[in-house]
Order: sequence, then C-alpha cells, then structure tokens
Amino acid sequence: MRAVDIIGVGITKFGKYIEKSLVELGGRVAIEAIKDAGIKPSQINAGFFANMQAGSLFSDFTIGQNVFWQAGINRVPVFNVENACTSGSSAFNLAWMGVASGAYDMAMVLGAEKLNVPNLGLMQSGTTELDTLEGMVVPVSFAMRANLHMATYGTTKEQLAMVAVKNRRHAGLNPLAQFRDPITVEDVLNAPMIADPLTRLSCCPNADGAAAVVLCASELSRRYTSRPVRVAASVLVTGSYQNPCNLAQWDADKRASSMAYEKAGLGPEDLDVVECHDAFTISEILHYEGIGLCPEGEGGRFVESGATSLGGKIPVNLSGGLLSKGHPIGATAVAQIIEGVRQLRGEAGSLQVEGAKVFLAECMGADKAGDVKTCTVNILIN
Amino acid sequence: MRAVDIIGVGITKFGKYIEKSLVELGGRVAIEAIKDAGIKPSQINAGFFANMQAGSLFSDFTIGQNVFWQAGINRVPVFNVENACTSGSSAFNLAWMGVASGAYDMAMVLGAEKLNVPNLGLMQSGTTELDTLEGMVVPVSFAMRANLHMATYGTTKEQLAMVAVKNRRHAGLNPLAQFRDPITVEDVLNAPMIADPLTRLSCCPNADGAAAVVLCASELSRRYTSRPVRVAASVLVTGSYQNPCNLAQWDADKRASSMAYEKAGLGPEDLDVVECHDAFTISEILHYEGIGLCPEGEGGRFVESGATSLGGKIPVNLSGGLLSKGHPIGATAVAQIIEGVRQLRGEAGSLQVEGAKVFLAECMGADKAGDVKTCTVNILIN
Repeated sequence: MRAVDIIGVGITKFGKYIEKSLVELGGRVAIEAIKDAGIKPSQINAGFFANMQAGSLFSDFTIGQNVFWQAGINRVPVFNVENACTSGSSAFNLAWMGVASGAYDMAMVLGAEKLNVPNLGLMQSGTTELDTLEGMVVPVSFAMRANLHMATYGTTKEQLAMVAVKNRRHAGLNPLAQFRDPITVEDVLNAPMIADPLTRLSCCPNADGAAAVVLCASELSRRYTSRPVRVAASVLVTGSYQNPCNLAQWDADKRASSMAYEKAGLGPEDLDVVECHDAFTISEILHYEGIGLCPEGEGGRFVESGATSLGGKIPVNLSGGLLSKGHPIGATAVAQIIEGVRQLRGEAGSLQVEGAKVFLAECMGADKAGDVKTCTVNILIN
Repeated sequence: MRAVDIIGVGITKFGKYIEKSLVELGGRVAIEAIKDAGIKPSQINAGFFANMQAGSLFSDFTIGQNVFWQAGINRVPVFNVENACTSGSSAFNLAWMGVASGAYDMAMVLGAEKLNVPNLGLMQSGTTELDTLEGMVVPVSFAMRANLHMATYGTTKEQLAMVAVKNRRHAGLNPLAQFRDPITVEDVLNAPMIADPLTRLSCCPNADGAAAVVLCASELSRRYTSRPVRVAASVLVTGSYQNPCNLAQWDADKRASSMAYEKAGLGPEDLDVVECHDAFTISEILHYEGIGLCPEGEGGRFVESGATSLGGKIPVNLSGGLLSKGHPIGATAVAQIIEGVRQLRGEAGSLQVEGAKVFLAECMGADKAGDVKTCTVNILIN
C-alpha cells in the first residue's frame, strides 16, 4: 500500500440552504476542491460520495453520479456510501484504500446532506424496534451515558455545558460555522431540556452542507501542490454491540484510535489539533478519554482545565464542532478532515495552532438506540 | 494488487418474504456463505453491504452492520454501498479492491433487498425532474430504446419476446427462481402493455432476496477450499450522460467490458457462460452487443438463433435472469456472481455448461429517466 496525500479541499458554510439542491451544494465543493488541487476534473479516477438521506427524502439512489457530473467528473467509477454519521469518513477510508492500493492515482471524496426539508421526521428511529418504541431514541441513550459518567466519575452538568461553550467560542472565529454567537454555561443549562441532563444547547443542530477532498498518491502529489497533507492512518471499525460493562465508556473509539496510532507510529501525546464527534456534549468528553487525550473518567475536568480550548494543550473542535456548525450527516466527517488540512497547511487564520504538524479526526456512527455502528479515526500529518 | 478468489457463497430463493426482515434474509446468506467457505465469522476482515431501499423504507441507515452481526461478523469495518441496480457489484468491486490491495485478507459482500412491502411507491422516480414529470420513467425509456433498435436494425417484437421465453425456460431448471412456469412468445406479446413494445412479461418483476460471497486473497484460498474461483477482472464505470448519437446502443457496457477483457487477458470468444442485466427484454439484446457476443444490431437475431440458450454457443442468464428471478436490487448483482461460481465449480446441476471455465457478469444501474449511472463487469475463471 502506497502513501496517500490530500491535495485539495472544498467546503460550504454549514447552515440552511432551503433553495439549493444537494446536487448544487455538492457540485460547488467538487469544483472548489478541483481548483484548490490545481487539477482538471478528468484527472479524478474515482468518486466516493457520502450521504444518508437522499434516498429516503428525494428518491435519488445514485445521487453521487449527479453531483460529480456537475463538476465534470464523469465515466469513472462512482460509489454511493452510507454509514450514518461516519458516512463521510467511510467514503474517505474507501477512497484512501483505492489510491493506496494503486487502483486509482487520484480520487475525490464528497459528502453532502440536506436536512432542512419538510417532513424530515425522526431520523434513525426504527419503527419496529421495541427499545425505540419505548422511547430509547438517540438523545435519551446519550443522556443515560452522561448520567452514568456523572455518577461514576463526578463529572458535573457545568463541565458538560463547558463543551458547548468552548465549541461556540471557537465557532465565533470560524466564518463557516452555523451558530457563532457566544453562549455561557448558564445558557446551556437553562436551554429547553431534551433528555436530562442534555438541553437543546447540548445537542448538535441540523444543517445542510457539503465538503470535498481530493486524494492523490503521494508519489505524484508534488506535481500539483507544494503543500500536500499526508494521510498517516485511516481506520474504520464497527462497534461490538455487546452491552459493555461500563456504558460511560465506548470501546470503538479506543480500538480505532489505538489502531490508527500504531499505523501512524504516533501517540495521543503527538497530536496538535483534534476534531471529534461532539453530537452531544457528553460525546466529546467520552471521546477525550477514548482517544487517549486524558485518563478514563477525567474528561469533565479536562475540558474545565481549558486543555481543549484554543491556546490549550490540545485544542479540540476548533471549527466549532457539530455543536456549533450543525451536522449535515454525509458532509460532517469530510469537513472534520478539511479542518485538519487547513491547520496543517497553516491556513486556519485566527484558529491556527502554531506549527501544527499532527491532526486527528474521530467520528462515530450510532443508530437507533445509540448503538455504536461505526467509528473512524483519521490521522493527518505534514 | 494481488489475486483474489471467491471461496464461499450463500443465496436465498428470490420471491416474496413478507414476514422475514432484511436482517433475517441477509443473516441467513451470510451464515451460509461462511459455512460454504469453511471459515469462522471472525476470519472475515471487512463487510460490504449492498442495498438500496432500507433507508427510505425502514429508516435504517446502517443496516449492513445489523446483517453482518447476525452472522457473528462484528467489530470489523462495514460499509453500506448503494449504486442502484449495480449496488451488489459495486460492493463486490470495493471488496475485491480491499482484498487485492492487501488491506484485508478476507471480505464478505452481501446484497439484500425487500421490495414486497406496503407503499413501495415508484422507485427511482425523482419528483423534481422535468422529464420524469412528463412521463419519462424507466420502462418508457427502455421502450424507446426498443423501438429505435427495431427501426434501425430490423429487430422484431417476437425476438424481444424470445429473451423472456428463453430466460423462463432456464428458470424452470433453477429452483431458486421466482417464476418458473414456461411461457411462449404469444404469452409475452399478449401480456398487459407497460410501454409499447414492452409488456408485463418483458419487464423484470420485484422480489425480495439476499446473496453473499466470501472473497479471499488467492495466496490463502487453498487453505479453505479445493475449488476457489478466481476474480480475473472487476470493473466499474459510470455512464457518460451525454446524449449518445445512437440511443439503441449504450457505451457504458462496451467500455466496462473492454476494460475487463483487457485486464483478464480474454475476449468475448473465450466466455463459456454469461449473466447480464435483463431488466427488460431489450436490455439483454443491447448487452449482447455491448459486451461483444454479437455484432451491433444483431442482438435480436442472435437470441432467435438459440446461441444464448442452454446448449447454445454462449448461454446467457441460465439462472432465469431478472426477468424470471425478479430483481431484489441490492442482491441482484451478487446473485449473478454466484451463478458464475456455481458454473465454474461444476455445481450448476441441470443448468451446468460442460467444462465451463470463463464466466462474465454484467450489470447496469440506471436512474430516473433511464440515464446510465453505473455499469459493472466481473469476469471469473477457474
């Protein structure tokens, strides 16, 4: 397997695009990524499209082909990939494998989603599962994890809220984030309750958006760019489904990050910037522990210490995270990777971490009652 | 890229499974394929799941994980892949790439679909496209191609009907086919008209079903089986979208098969058995020409000659094809490959082609108004 670089990126602001189609949003970032890479559309050998809802909302089951066509990417293999919240990073993993294997020299990963549509309904909530019918939907299962974390490790509601406050503070510096006005711990605690202790400001909002990256064999990438970003590891695992002994810990993020660290020859102490899957405030705290940023049970105190804020020991979710950007499902994990590319290229503006050299993106896909289906960890270096 | 073998297969009869879930159907063939391969579930390093409708019909967006879990395949990477009618062969192509690249030693491809559900609605028919609103839905676009083929090349309605008659005759020998009672040319011509000249017996029926194959690096496959089947070529292309000069010919099947022949070092004259995508009778005739079984325009006369019947020069769709088996979308292209495995293993019973050594499966995914989105060609040898 040969080395693979990212040579181009394109992304929309996340938010409401009532009058734009998925094809329009996706086509735009494809063109932007091609321009950024300094290539022609015809140089892309394969397209990997990530999306979750186009089939159910728009009856379009080969939408990736339509999107790539908008950017002049045509006749080459195109795959439509779905893996819940990790759809984008699953498509990235496949594209990486395609280029690493030598099957393709250059591939595009494009994630796009439209969630601001009428009659969206309750996503991911199966109609036949007993636990779902009994009320065990996604926010509830995360609230249970939060309560257990609080009871087991002494994590406080205020610490949970600090995740949302920190990410909103970061979002204030990111013009592509959906919600950018600062919020306080009190704002989070006093927001409408969704599932105790998670209030509306503890849960990521919906969004529309699209994001694309161009992957290229490293042996070729300097032909196109002077600042390629290397994919040091791309790992995808599926959750165990077993009832873990401790619901306040996941195992999928631990396994995926361990495998990624080993492949990259790095450890958590080497990381300069992290984007992780903060679908809920408790998620980010659990992922701190899962990917080894702090010891088990210390996540709440870790965010309170400021370690994961801009200027801290290991800034997490400088983009604003899902909590401030919103969560356009297919685009989310591709956007995380783009944040890393910007940091490693030194293009992150007022969010730049000085001399950033190692970036990690973690994303997790849960379904129905919060069962972990997929966890991805990608490590980028420059 | 290293060589890849198929070492195990599992398949359901295609038909109506009103009371069985997708997970149940899929789990069953996964277990069957594992047994057939003589391996343990824990030896599968990755799962590629093909399905089109689970998201829109059942709100399940990571159903592959559920299906593989039924068979004890857990914790490893699982990808949910969609590409309309070629969903199964797209998943196969990715799994082949995963094993060929060295990323995985063993992978399972599993396609499953349930179409016998209430309120299925009109699949693939976008609500916003002008051409769809004007009536240009899938059977209509294929009827136009049929009329043009008849006008251009002298193909007759009777020749079109002979495709359905032949495939039904084959289906009579295949206990897994949905419709097995023999039909005549008159039956086809007198069936209710769908889109002139295509009657109901000229169009493939819906079906539920599932199919799975286990892929293994060739260097390891003899540890598990004495009769591995080699993947000589796996090719996927996307259609051109351009209005071709001649609507009575596709270009995607030509391109995909040319690439596959080149990779396999073979030509159409070397084929012993073919499964092709007979969604409509005209489709099979067009694909004869596209994959080079007969010259352009000769497809109608080719089927009439008996060349593609059991015992003929190059038997096509011995399984009964989509026209007799039905078309459980995610499962269809995986099932085609399984027909090839059976032939090359010499296990095809009364449908066996004596000494079959080279098999080709072709599948095409169209959407909306019959635009070609994807075409796959897989060549298997023993």
